Amino acid sequence: MKKDSPKRSVAARVTLVEVGLRDGFQMEKKPVPTALKIELVSALVDAGLRRIQAASFVHPQKVPQMADAEELFRRLPKISGVRYSALVLNPQGLARALAAGVKELEISVSASDAHSRRNAGMGAEKALGKGLAMIREAKSARVVVRGGIQCAFGCASEGRIAQERILAMAEAFLAEGVDLLALCDTAGMAGPVQVRRMLDRVMPAAGSIPLAVHLHDTRGLGLVNAAAALDSGVTHFDTAAGGMGGCPFVAGAAGNIATEDTAVLMAKMGVETGIDIAKVAGVTERLEAFFGKRFPARNRKELICQPICKP
Amino acid sequence: MKKDSPKRSVAARVTLVEVGLRDGFQMEKKPVPTALKIELVSALVDAGLRRIQAASFVHPQKVPQMADAEELFRRLPKISGVRYSALVLNPQGLARALAAGVKELEISVSASDAHSRRNAGMGAEKALGKGLAMIREAKSARVVVRGGIQCAFGCASEGRIAQERILAMAEAFLAEGVDLLALCDTAGMAGPVQVRRMLDRVMPAAGSIPLAVHLHDTRGLGLVNAAAALDSGVTHFDTAAGGMGGCPFVAGAAGNIATEDTAVLMAKMGVETGIDIAKVAGVTERLEAFFGKRFPARNRKELICQPICKP
Repeated sequence: MKKDSPKRSVAARVTLVEVGLRDGFQMEKKPVPTALKIELVSALVDAGLRRIQAASFVHPQKVPQMADAEELFRRLPKISGVRYSALVLNPQGLARALAAGVKELEISVSASDAHSRRNAGMGAEKALGKGLAMIREAKSARVVVRGGIQCAFGCASEGRIAQERILAMAEAFLAEGVDLLALCDTAGMAGPVQVRRMLDRVMPAAGSIPLAVHLHDTRGLGLVNAAAALDSGVTHFDTAAGGMGGCPFVAGAAGNIATEDTAVLMAKMGVETGIDIAKVAGVTERLEAFFGKRFPARNRKELICQPICKP
Repeated sequence: MKKDSPKRSVAARVTLVEVGLRDGFQMEKKPVPTALKIELVSALVDAGLRRIQAASFVHPQKVPQMADAEELFRRLPKISGVRYSALVLNPQGLARALAAGVKELEISVSASDAHSRRNAGMGAEKALGKGLAMIREAKSARVVVRGGIQCAFGCASEGRIAQERILAMAEAFLAEGVDLLALCDTAGMAGPVQVRRMLDRVMPAAGSIPLAVHLHDTRGLGLVNAAAALDSGVTHFDTAAGGMGGCPFVAGAAGNIATEDTAVLMAKMGVETGIDIAKVAGVTERLEAFFGKRFPARNRKELICQPICKP
């Protein structure tokens, strides 16, 4: 693929990156024991997942669910072809992740000034500078780096973020040599037209570097946006078993796009994922039993096994 | 629009047809009093809905929730610009609807032989013949007729239905002069590629007759399919407040695409609906309070009013 190719074609095969253990669990009050996390990872690998974001290295008091990140990475099963990543948001987290020997990191910066101030304690411009320095450090430690742009499709406080700002951030990440670039719809605000337009700008800049989208189903458009991203040549999709995640301010709000539903979408679009949908639905059932609640994924085990519906 | 125009452009404005009182309520055990139905219709009209499928004329023992169809149509508020329709599936239902003075009818036939035998007690071919006779009778009574094709995107028992069969049914309906043609994803089996391919075939046959899609979110692809249908020139979308509906065989299965979520999708795609999303979300809250359960719509009142999400 040439650097200035105008548009990528739809991939024949895409990668679903399971982020439930990180983006899903961080929303849950009930502590998940490390041993259960490891069991779930094994079940997800058995279901065909090959990329798993297992934790974030953040302050354990801020996100107690991630306090076992070091121990978890020590104990994760080593399986050929399976790669684990962690999210880091600041230099302290990066230092911990590197010390823990994590081989693949997402270094993520918000495009929204308001969101960045609230989450990272500094404006977006300053956070970008710090993020780029972190990427340099991680790359020099020979870690695979994914650069993430939070609020790439808007922010609940700021509304729409200028496309130029996202493109500039993407170019800065690419100049540092990120191995993958992720556009994150942190607040679930994207629409399919916006996704297509954004990717029409970012794709040519990315050249041969693969693009990921991290989509939330907050307003019900998660899979619509995933289909639009696929049509624009995106190859990596963050998903969470059951559609875990959500929003702390809205009871019952939808979270990440569900792994099983995204796999169904891809299958219906003729795109391979390598995912066993029924097995993912089994993981979701187990998570629901553990947390004592229902997650929003549509493709339940009973639907897959007994498709006779709506006479 | 010429009869053989190859592709329609995306509409600047589309019509959401509220079908919750029919397709949603028929799934619910708790009887809805006629007076409440009328209040809900008024609230939906206040929220901007102008096309409401209020009931089906079916056997009251089979679907007790629809037993008040005659009374309901007598008492529905007469409001300029608002049109009510009813679904009929057999000659007895048609006779009742005509006697009740219903001005707009959906006459619906299944494309699936297995589904037709189970639901209509006869094979698809025979059901089509009866349906066409019903259309003739309704047209001669000067009723506005929408021809509906059930299982147009597949059947849980039969799997994929040949595109040629759907096209032949559509042409038969169009030859009888239907005023609108509806392709129904009765079992929620459609995918966006399939929707586009089907509409590429049916659209040219339909000429200037508008097309509707009736989509279920059973497998989470409802809005993906709605976006694909919009892109193919569809102008009418059946939706239910809250995403009521579902499947009697799958606990908690998703139903029709939600009115509020579809309105958000259209807004994000730059398409007018005339719908006040917060008001529809208010209707959903009222329905949830009445039925004592949560419906699957994503765009809750609290999300619309307090959009700060996921810091």
